[in-house]
Amino acid sequence: MNFHTLQWKGDTTGFLELLDQRRLPTETVYINCQTVPQLWDCIKTLAVRGAPAIGVSAAYGVCIAAKDITEDKTLTQAAEYLDQQIDYLATSRPTAVNLFWALERMRKTIQVFIEQNDHAEISDLQNRLLTEADQICHEDKQMCEAIGKFGEQFIPQNGAVLTHCNAGALATAGCGTALAPMFEAKKAGKQFRVYCDETRPLLQGARLTAWELKQADIETYLICDNTAGWLMKQKMIDAVITGADRIASNGDTANKIGTYSLSILARGHNIPFYIAAPTSTFDMSLADGSAIPIEQRDRAEVTHIKQNQLAPAEINVYNAAFDVTQAADIAAIITEKGIIPKPDTQKIRQMLET
Amino acid sequence: MNFHTLQWKGDTTGFLELLDQRRLPTETVYINCQTVPQLWDCIKTLAVRGAPAIGVSAAYGVCIAAKDITEDKTLTQAAEYLDQQIDYLATSRPTAVNLFWALERMRKTIQVFIEQNDHAEISDLQNRLLTEADQICHEDKQMCEAIGKFGEQFIPQNGAVLTHCNAGALATAGCGTALAPMFEAKKAGKQFRVYCDETRPLLQGARLTAWELKQADIETYLICDNTAGWLMKQKMIDAVITGADRIASNGDTANKIGTYSLSILARGHNIPFYIAAPTSTFDMSLADGSAIPIEQRDRAEVTHIKQNQLAPAEINVYNAAFDVTQAADIAAIITEKGIIPKPDTQKIRQMLET
Repeated sequence: MNFHTLQWKGDTTGFLELLDQRRLPTETVYINCQTVPQLWDCIKTLAVRGAPAIGVSAAYGVCIAAKDITEDKTLTQAAEYLDQQIDYLATSRPTAVNLFWALERMRKTIQVFIEQNDHAEISDLQNRLLTEADQICHEDKQMCEAIGKFGEQFIPQNGAVLTHCNAGALATAGCGTALAPMFEAKKAGKQFRVYCDETRPLLQGARLTAWELKQADIETYLICDNTAGWLMKQKMIDAVITGADRIASNGDTANKIGTYSLSILARGHNIPFYIAAPTSTFDMSLADGSAIPIEQRDRAEVTHIKQNQLAPAEINVYNAAFDVTQAADIAAIITEKGIIPKPDTQKIRQMLET
Repeated sequence: MNFHTLQWKGDTTGFLELLDQRRLPTETVYINCQTVPQLWDCIKTLAVRGAPAIGVSAAYGVCIAAKDITEDKTLTQAAEYLDQQIDYLATSRPTAVNLFWALERMRKTIQVFIEQNDHAEISDLQNRLLTEADQICHEDKQMCEAIGKFGEQFIPQNGAVLTHCNAGALATAGCGTALAPMFEAKKAGKQFRVYCDETRPLLQGARLTAWELKQADIETYLICDNTAGWLMKQKMIDAVITGADRIASNGDTANKIGTYSLSILARGHNIPFYIAAPTSTFDMSLADGSAIPIEQRDRAEVTHIKQNQLAPAEINVYNAAFDVTQAADIAAIITEKGIIPKPDTQKIRQMLET
């Protein structure tokens, strides 16, 4: 990749560099994230987005928070302060579970560190937190590679896959989830095409996925979201692969709005529908998808593109950012630990325990 | 309606006034169409769009062409010239059959007039053509009203209907096809909501349908096209009603891209799917939908909104403007002559013959 989605710069006094995804594909601009409110805003306004990338960014966010703790504070005071900052970061987006997963891992790191090092310096804690965030980032990169290797088999030679939104390098610290099998297939010399849903309202497919795939020299066709069914009808799609923002214990999967429709269309045309996601995306506290909170976003995302007004002033808008695909319509979930075919609670539990 | 989609102004030396739909919803501007190339361009670039409105406009286009015929020409020379102009107008859009239907009716009017009036003046022919175009326009208005009255029964009290693209007053000379039952239901005092697909790439739903329904004070919610399935899953949609650009003799229906996906989603959720269209939309020369030509439009419609670039430069785009819904997935076709439930060739033929 000739870009990076996120990168910590410097030592514990450093900052998080984020590729500003709001400005792609026309501008490649990086943001120096120096404060927790700045990072909160970057997550909220989608400068950084994609469940894994949000998780890694939030982990580094705890390092950003830790920078402000002076050496005169006790470890207990530091932990209290960081707890508040973690709670605050957790309010930036409601649906992606990786955010909470990464923040809880950082919270636990603090607890364990204090239990085991009651005479340590604040700087020792800061070092420990940066090591842990780096580790989460490193695991994310390994996870992407593993998903790519496991998922490559589902990219048909001389065939075509459809993807929705962006679950690529721009959604992770590595080479992506849903797109990782495509990068792997390309590396292996396979011939294939990708149809890429533009993904209204925020056009992550048009702006980000098309950009990434083009950079990797993969044959890519941009389509409007409403065109996928017609391609399926014409036998122009052999498989659908998307990412996930949260997966319930039975396999029900929350992902970008439009994913559910694709799953029903794929079922109607006997086309396999795959989810690619790290095991950190599973929320085993939820029996099924009905309990996954669905983020409702601002009406202006639908009524305007930049300064252009697309719809009448004050029209009502229904703008759910996510929907939930039923486990029964998922041919397999591709994780970094392996494939879960026809996912159900038992198979998912087994995979998570390996 | 406090606007008109199209209106002939003046006598045979007059012009066609068109509401410039490219500039809605932010500007209400009318175009004075004085020449045939100007009208061709208005149809091609969607200043006027919607199958019935295109048909009526093209009929008036023949009157515009006839203005240029000087009194020193013979009727045969006039007919030859008008034949060429009709052929030219027929090239403006390939899918909507009403365009060809209206032009052929005008062509026949010329033939019959000349056969019956071999010593008539050019001005008599001009008068005859304007009378015929006015008649087509009048019939279009009556057609809309009849569709509204027949279709009103499908708008559920306290329920919600979904529509796609614009098949309203802006798509006809009257009060619309798919929207006519909604206007009728509103008049009858029914309580209901309309969900309106924004309809990428040209956003006829966001720009036109939302605007029309809001003007009629109907409770309307704008959604992205990829959101319809998720609303169905949540039991928020009771019926789908769209227009049509061409209907084959077996009931297969070409309409705006995305209609096919809606029909599959509706089937998957046991929601009735209705087509509202005048009988002039039927093309009985086609056995089924496979022979309907599908217009492929410019990539820039998908990659740009006005001056805003949404996607990487030079990305491939698949931009079919229409798709074909299978007759088997249509609960009924609502025509100005009555309802055709579960359409098939025999029922359609019967309805057309009444």
